[in-house]
Amino acid sequence: MRLCRFGDGALGLVDGANVRDVTAALDVLPAHRHPFPSHDVLIANLDMVVERVRAICARAPVQPVADVTLLSPVANPGKILCAPVNYQKHLDEVREDAQLHHDNQVAPIHKAGLFLKATSSLVGPGAGIALRKLDRRNDHEVELAVVIGKQGNNIARRDALDHVAGYAIGLDITIRGPEERSLRKSPDSYAVLGPWLVTPDEIPNPGNLDLRISVNGEQRQSSNTKHLILGVAELIEYASSFYTLFPGDVMMTGTPEGVSPIQPGDVISAYVERIGTMEVRVRAA
Amino acid sequence: MRLCRFGDGALGLVDGANVRDVTAALDVLPAHRHPFPSHDVLIANLDMVVERVRAICARAPVQPVADVTLLSPVANPGKILCAPVNYQKHLDEVREDAQLHHDNQVAPIHKAGLFLKATSSLVGPGAGIALRKLDRRNDHEVELAVVIGKQGNNIARRDALDHVAGYAIGLDITIRGPEERSLRKSPDSYAVLGPWLVTPDEIPNPGNLDLRISVNGEQRQSSNTKHLILGVAELIEYASSFYTLFPGDVMMTGTPEGVSPIQPGDVISAYVERIGTMEVRVRAA
Repeated sequence: MRLCRFGDGALGLVDGANVRDVTAALDVLPAHRHPFPSHDVLIANLDMVVERVRAICARAPVQPVADVTLLSPVANPGKILCAPVNYQKHLDEVREDAQLHHDNQVAPIHKAGLFLKATSSLVGPGAGIALRKLDRRNDHEVELAVVIGKQGNNIARRDALDHVAGYAIGLDITIRGPEERSLRKSPDSYAVLGPWLVTPDEIPNPGNLDLRISVNGEQRQSSNTKHLILGVAELIEYASSFYTLFPGDVMMTGTPEGVSPIQPGDVISAYVERIGTMEVRVRAA
Repeated sequence: MRLCRFGDGALGLVDGANVRDVTAALDVLPAHRHPFPSHDVLIANLDMVVERVRAICARAPVQPVADVTLLSPVANPGKILCAPVNYQKHLDEVREDAQLHHDNQVAPIHKAGLFLKATSSLVGPGAGIALRKLDRRNDHEVELAVVIGKQGNNIARRDALDHVAGYAIGLDITIRGPEERSLRKSPDSYAVLGPWLVTPDEIPNPGNLDLRISVNGEQRQSSNTKHLILGVAELIEYASSFYTLFPGDVMMTGTPEGVSPIQPGDVISAYVERIGTMEVRVRAA
C-alpha cells in the first residue's frame, strides 16, 4: 500500500497516477492533550488506519496525484537519524575533495556513527527546499528512508525488519563546511521525505533497490542499496544499541557517490525503485 | 515563577521547599489530533497557564518538593540543541586529553557549530540516568539550559532574550568515543532537564550565574556563565540563522572544564545559581 499526506493534512491512497482521499480513516486516531506521546500517532496506529483505508477506499474521491501538494508522509517523527558515510564510493569522493571534507577527518560509518537532523527540517516534496547560507555550497543527497513502525531497543538484526512501517525517498540536503553535521543538515526544509510511504509488503528486500537523482534533467547520483555498507537491518540494530526507536522515527540510510551543488531555481527529481519518483523545487530561503 | 512537572504529569508551582499542585491550570491547554504542532503546547501557552496558576495556587494542595518525582519541565521539545565547546577552559582540557578527543579534531564553537541530542534522550531528575556502553567512558556535563518560548528565525542578538520562556539545569551526559556527538550524547536518559523551569523575571541576566556539579559529594565542575564564549543571546542568534526555533526547544549552552567519568551507583548533584539544585542517580541501563 502507498499512503501519502497531501494538501492541508489529508490522507491519500496512491493508486497508479491517482490518489484517493481517505482522510476519513484518520478518525480512528485518538486525540491527545499535553503531554503528547513520543511517537507519531498515525504511524503507531498504522494497522488500524490501513484497515479503515481498505474499508472506505472504494467510495473515496479520486484525483490525479499530480494535482495535489504532497506533504511528508510522517508528520511528527520523534527523531530523524542518518547514516553519514554508508556507501564506500561516497566515502572515497568525500576524502578526495577538500570542498566536501573541509579538513575534517572523514571516518567510515562504524567510527563516524549516526547523526541527527532536526525534526523541524522535515518537509514533503510539495514544500520545496529553501536554501540558506547561499555563500556556501549546498548539496543534494538522495537516500532510501526507512520509517520505524514498532518501538524497540537493542533490536537484533534478525528481528529488525519487523520494526519497519514502510519506506520512502529521503533527501538529506547539506550545507558543506566544518560544523557538526547535525547543524549543517538541519535548516528548515533540508530533510525532504516523500512522495509517499510504501508498506513493507511491497518491498520485501530493501537491500536491492536502484536509486538515483537528477538536477534539471541531468543525472547526478545513481546506485543501488546493495552497495550500502550497513544495510537496513544492520542500521536498526546499530541505532537501537544507542537509543530507543519509536514509531515514526525516520532513518535515512546514507547517500551514494555523486553529491553535487544545488542552487535556487533548480528542479530535483529523485527516484527509488519500488517507491517512485518525486520532484522537488529549490529556492532561496 | 518556578514551575515543575512531577509524578504522572502533574504541574507544580515551586515555593521554597514546597510544591503546590496546580495541575488544574493545564485545563487551558487545547487538545490536538494528528498532526500535532511542532512546539511544546505547555510552553507555547505559558502566559495563559501562568495566569491560571496565579488564580488557583492559593487553594492548591501543598507537599514537600522532596517527596515528589520530578519530570522534565518540558515534555515535548521539538529539538534539543547544544553548544559543544563553549567554555575556553573546557576546550583546552579536551584538546589535551586523548580520552576526551579520541583523535577527532576539536574545533572552537564557531567552527564546530551546534549539535543535537535526540528528544528521546530527555528525562527529568527523578528518572535518573541509565548508562549504556559501560565498556566506554561516560561523562557528566553540567550546563545552563534555556527553554525557547517564542517561535523565531534569524533572531537578532538584541531581541534574543525576548524568545526565552525560562531557564533550567541541563545535564549533557556523554559517551566518549569517535562517533558523532549527536549519537554518543543521545541514549535514553542522557539529557536531564530540571529541577524546574525558572521564568526570566527571576533571571534578568543569564550571563552571570555560578554553576557546579558534584559526584558522590565530590565537586567536579565549578564555573560561571560569564565564561561562556557565546552567551545565551549570541547562541540564539547563531542557532536561528540555521533553523527556526520553536516554543519548547531546549538549548544547552555548553559545559565548563572538569568533565569526568560517572558509574552506576553514583549520585550527581547539580547546581545553577537562581535555579537551584537537582540530585540525579546513575544506574546501568
